[in-house]
Amino acid sequence: MANIETFDEHPSGTLAAGDGFKLADVDPDSTPGYPGGKSDGRALLEELDGKLAALQEQLFAEAKFGGTKRVLLILQAMDTAGKGGIVAHVVGAMDPQGVQLKAFKAPTDEEKSYDFLWRIEKEVPAAGMVGVFDRSHYEDVLIHRVHGWAPPEELERRYTAINEFEARLAASGTRIVKVMLNISRDEQKARLLARLDDPSKHWKYSSSDLKERAFWDDYMAAYQAAFDKTHTEVAPWHVVPANKKWYARIAVQQLLLQAMEDLNLKWPAAEFDVALERSLVERS
Amino acid sequence: MANIETFDEHPSGTLAAGDGFKLADVDPDSTPGYPGGKSDGRALLEELDGKLAALQEQLFAEAKFGGTKRVLLILQAMDTAGKGGIVAHVVGAMDPQGVQLKAFKAPTDEEKSYDFLWRIEKEVPAAGMVGVFDRSHYEDVLIHRVHGWAPPEELERRYTAINEFEARLAASGTRIVKVMLNISRDEQKARLLARLDDPSKHWKYSSSDLKERAFWDDYMAAYQAAFDKTHTEVAPWHVVPANKKWYARIAVQQLLLQAMEDLNLKWPAAEFDVALERSLVERS
Repeated sequence: MANIETFDEHPSGTLAAGDGFKLADVDPDSTPGYPGGKSDGRALLEELDGKLAALQEQLFAEAKFGGTKRVLLILQAMDTAGKGGIVAHVVGAMDPQGVQLKAFKAPTDEEKSYDFLWRIEKEVPAAGMVGVFDRSHYEDVLIHRVHGWAPPEELERRYTAINEFEARLAASGTRIVKVMLNISRDEQKARLLARLDDPSKHWKYSSSDLKERAFWDDYMAAYQAAFDKTHTEVAPWHVVPANKKWYARIAVQQLLLQAMEDLNLKWPAAEFDVALERSLVERS
Repeated sequence: MANIETFDEHPSGTLAAGDGFKLADVDPDSTPGYPGGKSDGRALLEELDGKLAALQEQLFAEAKFGGTKRVLLILQAMDTAGKGGIVAHVVGAMDPQGVQLKAFKAPTDEEKSYDFLWRIEKEVPAAGMVGVFDRSHYEDVLIHRVHGWAPPEELERRYTAINEFEARLAASGTRIVKVMLNISRDEQKARLLARLDDPSKHWKYSSSDLKERAFWDDYMAAYQAAFDKTHTEVAPWHVVPANKKWYARIAVQQLLLQAMEDLNLKWPAAEFDVALERSLVERS
């Protein structure tokens, strides 16, 4: 890494949406902690792919021998903010065998008939896995708040239920990383226009994106409320400036790397007699 | 690709386990159709990653607009043959959002209480997805045959049931690619020893591997029977020489590429008025 620009300061601190955090103060064009530009950032992403994959393999290996550690990355964002790019380019560097990805869509009628966490619980990562939620239970306090689908008391109940749920996941070995990709309203417009101008991207465009865009400020208020209510020690929120896709990717990669480094992973010790097995294989 | 060695002849033909195919005649060290060496092969794999990912995105996009096409890659092999490497290095190049991977382990008691295809049916790829089975329903005619867990009449019933099942998948839009990674007995020994000599690989070693190794010839006979009984036009088998990992990876990549090219994928046409949406976004 001699020639690749690295972070001055780990972004987990600077990006955390803790006490006193104001979403409105974040510049979506900024690159907190990173002094380099786009080409540096791309090189760094590629350089650290292997490290991320190696940590993921150790996490997976530990679980084969009874380890209970696991990781859950929760991605939330306005449309076009780049969740898909994070999945393809950051998560995609890990072995698919160790990744448990779930994209939550609008709930089905069956899902709606249960508590909002019912469908979420079924998708939490197994031991040794890196779980990734592309949208999540937070939709139930974001779009539901914006459109008034849930009254204030119900939203309060949900924030509490989310904190209890996430604390339970953490207690069973899950390192939770919550990320909001933060693009500006102007950047979203530019990206929607870019989709419309490229026929190979028309399939990604939906006029419902435009409908939600009209509620931009309400969404920002709903995100701020979610940070205020559900940023906890075991499940912290990180707001990642995302107007620069390359920055958002290296920032999320850093958050994942740190989450896994914090787990102090080790290769499991052999539970068999290595010399004996070696001689058996030799003779086989 | 000017400087990268490509295949002389597409491997889908040379590797097919059709009429008159004899597994015993295949040299696991060979590289059918490919004149290059390891460094050429690695360069080719990387070069074609993007093409594979682009086709997968088209497949995914089509399904968003009602397309029913999908792909199912079935991987079978003796232990250490490199199924995991195919998943990590070939399948891993595609967007995780479009890949539906299932590793079938020994069946649970619940799974055993149903017909052998019950647990398989639940994991078939959704429209637009690339499904990957790491082991599959073929275990029920491989290990079951080797150890006599199913009598001959039952094995015959299963071959027939498999052909009917796969024909049904094909009829509903699934392009099926069945691959047996073919390593030699000596190569397996070398790989097992390598695992034992590297503490970071001990977690991959199991003394049960050695137990199955003792039945090598019976396994080869069971594979031959599976090819004879279940190589069909809609679900052909391919036997990929796998002593050279780099060759196995480019060969499977070629098979996947061809499967997707055969689907004649196109970007879905916009179902909205592009100019109108453009003006709405501009004003938003």
